[in-house]
Amino acid sequence: MIHAVAANLRTDIAPPSEPWRVKARAHLDTLTKPLGSLGRLEDIAAQFIAIRQARFADPVSKAVYVFAADHGVTAEKVSAYPSEVTRQMVLNFLAGGAAINVLSRLHNVALQVIDVGVDGDFDPATPLVHAKVRRGSRNMHAEPAMAHDELLEALTVGIRMAEEAAASGHNLVAPGEMGIGNTTAASAITAALTGRPVPEVTGLGTGIDIPAREHKIRIIEESLALHFKGREAASPLEILGHVGGLEIAAITGFILAAARTHLAVVCDGFIATAAAAIAVSIAPAAAGYLIAGHQSREPGHAILLAHLNLQPILQLDMRLGEGTGAVLAMPVIESAIALYRDMATFTSAGVSEAAQ
Amino acid sequence: MIHAVAANLRTDIAPPSEPWRVKARAHLDTLTKPLGSLGRLEDIAAQFIAIRQARFADPVSKAVYVFAADHGVTAEKVSAYPSEVTRQMVLNFLAGGAAINVLSRLHNVALQVIDVGVDGDFDPATPLVHAKVRRGSRNMHAEPAMAHDELLEALTVGIRMAEEAAASGHNLVAPGEMGIGNTTAASAITAALTGRPVPEVTGLGTGIDIPAREHKIRIIEESLALHFKGREAASPLEILGHVGGLEIAAITGFILAAARTHLAVVCDGFIATAAAAIAVSIAPAAAGYLIAGHQSREPGHAILLAHLNLQPILQLDMRLGEGTGAVLAMPVIESAIALYRDMATFTSAGVSEAAQ
Repeated sequence: MIHAVAANLRTDIAPPSEPWRVKARAHLDTLTKPLGSLGRLEDIAAQFIAIRQARFADPVSKAVYVFAADHGVTAEKVSAYPSEVTRQMVLNFLAGGAAINVLSRLHNVALQVIDVGVDGDFDPATPLVHAKVRRGSRNMHAEPAMAHDELLEALTVGIRMAEEAAASGHNLVAPGEMGIGNTTAASAITAALTGRPVPEVTGLGTGIDIPAREHKIRIIEESLALHFKGREAASPLEILGHVGGLEIAAITGFILAAARTHLAVVCDGFIATAAAAIAVSIAPAAAGYLIAGHQSREPGHAILLAHLNLQPILQLDMRLGEGTGAVLAMPVIESAIALYRDMATFTSAGVSEAAQ
Repeated sequence: MIHAVAANLRTDIAPPSEPWRVKARAHLDTLTKPLGSLGRLEDIAAQFIAIRQARFADPVSKAVYVFAADHGVTAEKVSAYPSEVTRQMVLNFLAGGAAINVLSRLHNVALQVIDVGVDGDFDPATPLVHAKVRRGSRNMHAEPAMAHDELLEALTVGIRMAEEAAASGHNLVAPGEMGIGNTTAASAITAALTGRPVPEVTGLGTGIDIPAREHKIRIIEESLALHFKGREAASPLEILGHVGGLEIAAITGFILAAARTHLAVVCDGFIATAAAAIAVSIAPAAAGYLIAGHQSREPGHAILLAHLNLQPILQLDMRLGEGTGAVLAMPVIESAIALYRDMATFTSAGVSEAAQ
């Protein structure tokens, strides 16, 4: 069942259009600026046109989807914060006081919060997407983080949100996350996907100290050994199901469905990029829809970005998640598209071109 | 006369307030995020508070001032574009078709264009600041780029614009520039100020080829030898007057006066940063008012940023000038200030803090 869903997504995702990218490049070269002088903004504009496949594309409409879930592995004391903080921060999102709220308001980005697995209850009247699969993932140190049907359900939550984003007319979207313990899951995914040793991909999360990091490394190594030792290479879905998390699974589904419906996806930090790496392992054509927003201070993030061949727009030493790194990069992406759309050409402005 | 103006500015510029920076840091630590997890955004917010010296500062009001002038040294064929392009691009700015127009509109940044030395006439009804000192600087390869009174007048144009910015209520400002030939002047300034060899600080400007770059290097080396060889170390004002340019002098005055009136100044690319380096040589306390927006592809820019101990917010391989690198960084700076001002605290949001 779950493999059928993944296979369908793989089949349905076409890479961004190379002919449209070439057309976009040609247009960029007519604009009143030295050739290539907008640097990476030109790459971003051309990528957006290749994704949207229209001469000037539709106006940019931005949205961020924050998937929240708890992690059973917090029973192993891998985080500086208690698990209750996931639920408290979701309430903070709904009250408008978190970093992602401030940035979304400032930059005119629609914000949707999704409970895909918070270990706590919300009043049904609470204005969030109620899609709880389970009160937190299972403890990966003892059993797979998700049972088969739980993994499928979480992926489907993400798929549904991307479909709603497309139906709402958004074309520049980002997945964000909140989940105490989720850098542990992201580090485990990174080690399993890339084959890098756990210490290289494990950082201080929200702020543990050096001995706590040693403990976190041991928990991840033991979890990987429990699930994968002595077996042949695990598939991306197996990695996700065994050492991932509900919000990471939802983001994986979100990215795949966003690529299928031709949305540009801004990757946030370490957690969202771990989901992106799983998504690209499932459907390599999804890679062309990704734009890396911000490179986190977590050491595993740089490794994942290199693995995905993505260059982050920003490197500001943030390590917050929530989608903040993605939303902060959106004004740069929107700038690239506005320059592409609105600058005068040499001919229209009567400006002399460079000597050949 | 000119030395008296510089001495007054030096005396009048106080560094940003350290006590206010400490207060800002303390406030940042109460916000609902792991300690320090906003990375460089926290530094930027604290710098802004230290500059403005008020608990939550006034709302951010952004402006960019584009100083345009021609360069006599273009007679030596140092640029890919003909000198006429300076005037044509000023007309493009006024028509709203240049990159800086698109970015300023998108990010709600007031744009002012100043003719401080374009080699061509504008109708007096043209909506720009008419402050032409001279039709282009003199050819530095044959004589000082500016006579004493010309240098003073250009500095004064910049000082006046910063005073107008402060009077208009702007608190986050950027100097931009347009001037065919001005990377030649900026490279000469960089070599003279930092002592680095000319080839290390000279790039391809708007797009010359390798042989043209060799020629440009020779012209700069000969100009520096003409003015400074066998003399004691030149003062920053001497460097500016001999191998600078009218727009670079205006930007130097702009930055000094902006620091004096407690405005945060976003440095654009290579040219504006060369002016900033001169300004900081004249008045070291001005350094605390600078935020580096974008690191250009010009090799001299990285050297100047290191010389000024500034870390750029963006590195997108742009090399356009006009103020584009500064305006593109403004949404990030504004984000830092909005987070500082609008995020909930742990107490107000009822979120548990990290275990100590």
